[in-house]
This record gives sequence, C-alpha cells and structure tokens, in this order.
Amino acid sequence: MQRYFTNQEIKTEYKLDATTYHHAVVVLRMKVGSQFELVDAKQTVYLMELSELANKEAKAKVISKLDSQVELPLAISIACGLSKGDKAEWIVQKGTELGASEFIFFKGDYSVAKWDQKKAKKKVDRLQKIAQGAAEQSHRTKIPTVRYVESLKELTTFEGAKFLAYEEAAKQGETKALVKLTRELRTKAQPLLAVFGPEGGISPAEVTLAKQAGFVLGGLGPRILRAETAPLYLLASLSYALELE
Amino acid sequence: MQRYFTNQEIKTEYKLDATTYHHAVVVLRMKVGSQFELVDAKQTVYLMELSELANKEAKAKVISKLDSQVELPLAISIACGLSKGDKAEWIVQKGTELGASEFIFFKGDYSVAKWDQKKAKKKVDRLQKIAQGAAEQSHRTKIPTVRYVESLKELTTFEGAKFLAYEEAAKQGETKALVKLTRELRTKAQPLLAVFGPEGGISPAEVTLAKQAGFVLGGLGPRILRAETAPLYLLASLSYALELE
Repeated sequence: MQRYFTNQEIKTEYKLDATTYHHAVVVLRMKVGSQFELVDAKQTVYLMELSELANKEAKAKVISKLDSQVELPLAISIACGLSKGDKAEWIVQKGTELGASEFIFFKGDYSVAKWDQKKAKKKVDRLQKIAQGAAEQSHRTKIPTVRYVESLKELTTFEGAKFLAYEEAAKQGETKALVKLTRELRTKAQPLLAVFGPEGGISPAEVTLAKQAGFVLGGLGPRILRAETAPLYLLASLSYALELE
Repeated sequence: MQRYFTNQEIKTEYKLDATTYHHAVVVLRMKVGSQFELVDAKQTVYLMELSELANKEAKAKVISKLDSQVELPLAISIACGLSKGDKAEWIVQKGTELGASEFIFFKGDYSVAKWDQKKAKKKVDRLQKIAQGAAEQSHRTKIPTVRYVESLKELTTFEGAKFLAYEEAAKQGETKALVKLTRELRTKAQPLLAVFGPEGGISPAEVTLAKQAGFVLGGLGPRILRAETAPLYLLASLSYALELE
C-alpha cells in the first residue's frame, strides 16, 4: 500500500499537504474511500482513508494504528567522500532501503568531484527528496537526513562507534574488524558512523586523522568494492547480523 | 593495478588479445615495462610486464605468480525476474563485485519487461561484458556467467541449495530462514541458487512451484527492498557470514 510521511502529529484526521495531494489524487487517482499509510511526526504509522475530496484539497481519517517495527536497532550514519556522476543519488536511494539513518557527503582528499556551497545546497535538497521517496517505498518509519560537510575532520567528533572502510585492510585480508564491531554493537547499541572514501580512496592524512579520532579501520571482504557498493555491503551485513541472526 | 582475463593458459608469456591490447596500450597508454595482472584459464593470477610493443601487437612476460583467494567459498547463482530499465545491468555489475558466480534472468509471471530470443541474445552478450569489466575491477579470479531462461520452471532442477526471496515472508516478520540456510552452507558448502522476483513480485503459482522444488522461502529483513537491491543484500550477507564471521 502507498505510504506517505507528514511532519504533523496525527490524532483522528489529516489534511493532505500539496505534494501528497498531488501524488495521491492526481498521480494515483485516489477517490473518497481510497486507503493509504501515513507516518506522522512521532513515527507512528496509521492506516488512513480519504474522507473528503475537493478541488486541490483532501482530507483523510484514521482507520487504525499500524504496528510497524522496521528500523534498524541502531542509527547508522553513512559518510561518503564525493564521487563522480550520480553515485550519491543511488547511495541514498539504496542506503535508505537498507536502513541508514543519515547520509553525509564530504570532500575527500582524493575526491575529483567538488561541491561549492550553492551546488551542495541543491544536491542535498535533491538527495533529501530521493531519501523520502525511498523511505516511502521501502516502508520505513524514518526519513534519513542528508547533509554535506567540507572534510572528514568535521566528523571526528561524532558521538558513538566510528568505522572507516579501508581498502588496504581488505587487500591485506583483514576480516575481523567489522565482525568485532558488530558484536560490540549487538551488546551495546549505540549510533554508528561508517565512513567510505571516494573512487580515489582514503588519503594517508585521512587515515591518520581517523585513527587519532578512534575510528575502527576494517575491510569489507576480499573483493575490491566500488565507492558506491561498499556502504550497501556494510548496511546489509549489519542488518543480517543485528536483525536476522 | 589493472587486471585482465584471458582464456589461454599462461606459462611464461602472453600475447595480448585485441580487446586487452586496445585497453592497455591505447586507453591506458602502457609502455614496455608497464605491469598488469592477468588471470588465466586456470584462474591463476600472474603479475605481467609488457615486454614487446609493436603496432597492434604486444607481448607481456610473467614476472611472478600472485596468490589471490578472493572468491566466495560457494558458488552463488543469482536468478532475477526480468525488470524494467537498466536494473539487469547493475545487478550484474554490483553482484559481480559482491562475488556471484552466475546471473540468470527469467521471465517472471509478473514481469512487465519482455525479452524475445533476439533481445535476450543481445542483452546476455552485453551483460557478460559488464560482468567481465566488474570482475576485472573488483579483482575477481572468476568472471560470472550470464544466461536467460524462459521461466522459473527451468531452474527447479538446480543441484544444490535453493532460496526464494519472498516479500510476504518479510512482511510477516520472517527472519530465520536465511540465517538457517547460511548455517547449513557454513557446515556443508554447496552451490546456492537464490531467486528474486521482478518489481511485480513472485506469483502464487511461482511460489507453489518453488515450494514443490524444495526452495527455502525467506525474507531479507523488515524493510521492503527493490527488485535490484534484494540480490545485493543476500550476497553481502553471505559474504559477511561466510567470509568475515
């Protein structure tokens, strides 16, 4: 069933906002009696039914509260060095399906792509929309947030567990760091920041910075993953280990 | 370092084939003395050095044999119902990075996209090239094979473990089937066939067929994954459980 988000807190009814009205009534041609799911400001999920439909305005009433626990047991922030092309778009789309809470893009020492303030603003707005669409489609109860920071340094003060996906570690056959971290997260749930370099990789200066800031450096298996594939490996692995196992 | 594949068996030297010559000499501008990695017909990896360079022809000699164990401990065949757009392309690219041995595309009961024999041939050729490129980039020692079959029925005789990613199972909060299967694979390595429906999902007839054929039906976590995301979740999870844990 179609799912929408609202930043209002829902009691018994909901007046569709412009975007939701357009998608529900114009795109999906919903009529009075049509049902959809609505996640409100408190991440409560309601089954709603269109009750009034006027030109450019529609109201829906609460049919029932839906019990829905689909969020990861911990908040995972995915931080990626700027890469070329539309990689950011699909890291956000796929990462949202896989349960990430936040996406942070930063200018890595080896980043070829560059975002000035104006471009960063436009990009983040666009990526935030993609996150909302993916959250609706994957039936999340939380829309991940998207932000941009100038460099990895700004992330060193993150409160929680910190992991740096380090290709050299993978090449040297390092396999235990992620497993050890996962076991710790299973016993002590806390926010996780996972950092991934751009195509060019992580610079020695960034590695030193991360080590000083208490990041765990680890590999993601023996194969070389592209910049846009590595975050999905981490999210799927943590979902498997913390939600299924 | 750049990696190439050859279907020859390498002893001491290698005469570059046309495609490799073009990429190494024309695209990457390699000179005599330039080094690259070469995986031969026996999946042995060699460090090679360009020794002779003439117009349209180049030879390289073996510098050393490289020890490289980057393949999953079991062969995983990823079978996907035909989906729209370029989903097949990136299932093959990302799935190759994540270690799949084979990709099979089939016409699902709910598939909107259709491949006739002519289109299937062209698509498979193109997807095979994508698999080779991704295998080179991710430093695999095996190039996954790609094929097309008319329906799920043709896959029911697969010899090995069989898993069907079933969204209904996920919706009902099913979480144990994949974990149980993974434990079995850990104790008894055997080929795995994992089947994923198209965007439209798996039909009741296909579910019945799979059950009769001994498929394990299971979910991939509590969030609804797109048709192209689900195979990556499975591959990453199995890599984590069988290669890291």
